[in-house]
Amino acid sequence: MIPTTTRLADGREIVYFDDAPGADRAAVDTRDLAPATSHSELRHDPLLGEWVVVASHRQGRTHLPPTDACPLCPSTAGRATEIPSGDYDVVVFENRFPSLGAGVAADVDDGELADPALRRWSGGGRCEVVCFTSDHGASFGSLSDVRARTVVEAWAQRTSALSRRADVAQVFVFENRGQAIGVTLHHPHGQIYGYPFVTPRTRRMLDRAREHEERTGRGLLADVLAAEVEAARRIVTAGAHWTAYVPAAARWPFEVHLVPHRRVPDLPALDEAERAELAEVYRDLLARFDRVFDDPLPYVAAWYQAPVAEDRDLAHLHLQLFSIQRAPDKVKFLAGSESAMGVFINDVAPERAAELLRDAGPTSSVERPGGGR
Amino acid sequence: MIPTTTRLADGREIVYFDDAPGADRAAVDTRDLAPATSHSELRHDPLLGEWVVVASHRQGRTHLPPTDACPLCPSTAGRATEIPSGDYDVVVFENRFPSLGAGVAADVDDGELADPALRRWSGGGRCEVVCFTSDHGASFGSLSDVRARTVVEAWAQRTSALSRRADVAQVFVFENRGQAIGVTLHHPHGQIYGYPFVTPRTRRMLDRAREHEERTGRGLLADVLAAEVEAARRIVTAGAHWTAYVPAAARWPFEVHLVPHRRVPDLPALDEAERAELAEVYRDLLARFDRVFDDPLPYVAAWYQAPVAEDRDLAHLHLQLFSIQRAPDKVKFLAGSESAMGVFINDVAPERAAELLRDAGPTSSVERPGGGR
Repeated sequence: MIPTTTRLADGREIVYFDDAPGADRAAVDTRDLAPATSHSELRHDPLLGEWVVVASHRQGRTHLPPTDACPLCPSTAGRATEIPSGDYDVVVFENRFPSLGAGVAADVDDGELADPALRRWSGGGRCEVVCFTSDHGASFGSLSDVRARTVVEAWAQRTSALSRRADVAQVFVFENRGQAIGVTLHHPHGQIYGYPFVTPRTRRMLDRAREHEERTGRGLLADVLAAEVEAARRIVTAGAHWTAYVPAAARWPFEVHLVPHRRVPDLPALDEAERAELAEVYRDLLARFDRVFDDPLPYVAAWYQAPVAEDRDLAHLHLQLFSIQRAPDKVKFLAGSESAMGVFINDVAPERAAELLRDAGPTSSVERPGGGR
Repeated sequence: MIPTTTRLADGREIVYFDDAPGADRAAVDTRDLAPATSHSELRHDPLLGEWVVVASHRQGRTHLPPTDACPLCPSTAGRATEIPSGDYDVVVFENRFPSLGAGVAADVDDGELADPALRRWSGGGRCEVVCFTSDHGASFGSLSDVRARTVVEAWAQRTSALSRRADVAQVFVFENRGQAIGVTLHHPHGQIYGYPFVTPRTRRMLDRAREHEERTGRGLLADVLAAEVEAARRIVTAGAHWTAYVPAAARWPFEVHLVPHRRVPDLPALDEAERAELAEVYRDLLARFDRVFDDPLPYVAAWYQAPVAEDRDLAHLHLQLFSIQRAPDKVKFLAGSESAMGVFINDVAPERAAELLRDAGPTSSVERPGGGR
């Protein structure tokens, strides 16, 4: 993987990640762009002790443009896009409509309530777009071995780069796929958020992991993984370095956790063999999500990584891949119980989801859990 | 408000709440129904320490039936519905497709991970349906004064009744309205869940309230309310006993908190004057939600009540009313940041939402914050 870093017309950073050496990435962004600034505000919710991003400038962002106006396709002689080059393999650049960024300040607007520490909080953060391929009609699941591996390297490199920033406390690598989940651009792409705080869900997981470790001396996710391997019936697929299962208490109709057997804090900590198998097993999972119903499932793919500067010893990297689709013609809506109380009601039994996902695998490589034990 | 309790053919409880004495509620359910049992399971997520409801039997529940097959309309000579009577004012009955109920047991399926206390946990809980009116085409916002007041009394009475059950730890009164939020029956109705545990979000709010109270000696929500009244610009409407505002750190495009000035733990603790004003101010808010865009907003209305047996002194009853609609033609989707990390990105500034909701008020009763101070 060969990275080349340059700038767009408005000063935003762009990094090409090439599968092999030799590509020319000298093309210049010819557009006349005003400087990109974020008008987001971070606000503190005193009732829950959590930050909320208010990003009203994003109402005007690009929304489902036709293919010939796609801002994520390579530039052509007649049309300059977000990517100056006439072709690319994988490319990462700063979002022009960022939820987080240099201009973002924390607005602690709750009177006498705020902890003094909150008031001094400086804001910031970073939002990046990751294009997986220049092929507008492709998907992550359809990438070649080499390309999928380049994406994994890009994820790891960007995690390292953002982790060095003073205004980033946690790096979140993710993909939202499908209109049913609110995607506004069809071109195959993911995103990377550098949050200026540790996110609430990560905070709770770390607190739980600490309790478990203090009580048992063992890692929480390692124990969950061992229990799922033992139970066997929710395993979807497994390799030498990774296992994918539907968790016993899945919240979503289709939800898979992909966990490395070795406890590492984040993507940069993965070794060569783990990265290579990840590129394979992740595409296999996405292919199953494409085949389980007649239409490809909309999905969210979310990487849980350690915070950059705290509790790194408690974290255990993993991917949560989930879909809101509960039947070919029905999606799960979050209503009162989920949205207000935080209690999820899942209409699909996790064991049934695992069975459907196993059956949607390529016949040559289906792993039948328990078969070889 | 006159309550009459009876049973449906399968043994489920049904309670008529009449606006005035004199109604005949002796009609018998003539249907031949197998006993209703819940096949839900409660499963414990060890990573977050939260319960998830797996309710796979609900995949087959009634989904958007035509008006002439509505199970929530009164029975007629030719068609027996869930309500045996030929008419009703307000009626509450046990859900035939409950997520929680007598047959629900906790399945702690995480190997060595579970706390022994979890294993002994007995399951249970209760799900009820609240029909606001027999008029299929009505909405809560269109109810008469008297009827809205009857609904408030029914909420309070059911909260008291469920609070006495050994298998209920928290009573959640709510309404999901609109297809965009996943509603499966159009007839105007809400729901009541008796959770057999304190819900995660309530737990966090109580923990935050405890911290604040230990630090300041004051109630957290009372201080937030005071700060919002002082800031004024996010107030939507206010009366002698209730104030409605868009919170400074609103997560949803349209989100209103309706808070009683007197700190009470739950709906049964409201006095006569508070109940009367609630029936008024709540309908006023719903009318604003109907008018803010051309179409009525889909919404979730969620009551935060104290747990039935713990931390009642820390709780402060309030309503969270919110919509996913962010523009006339656009809804907010929960994607990676919200669903995985718990970080909400709100595209509508809370101050703008408050302004739009103030402008959507009836001209005769618009309360202009700060006007009289």
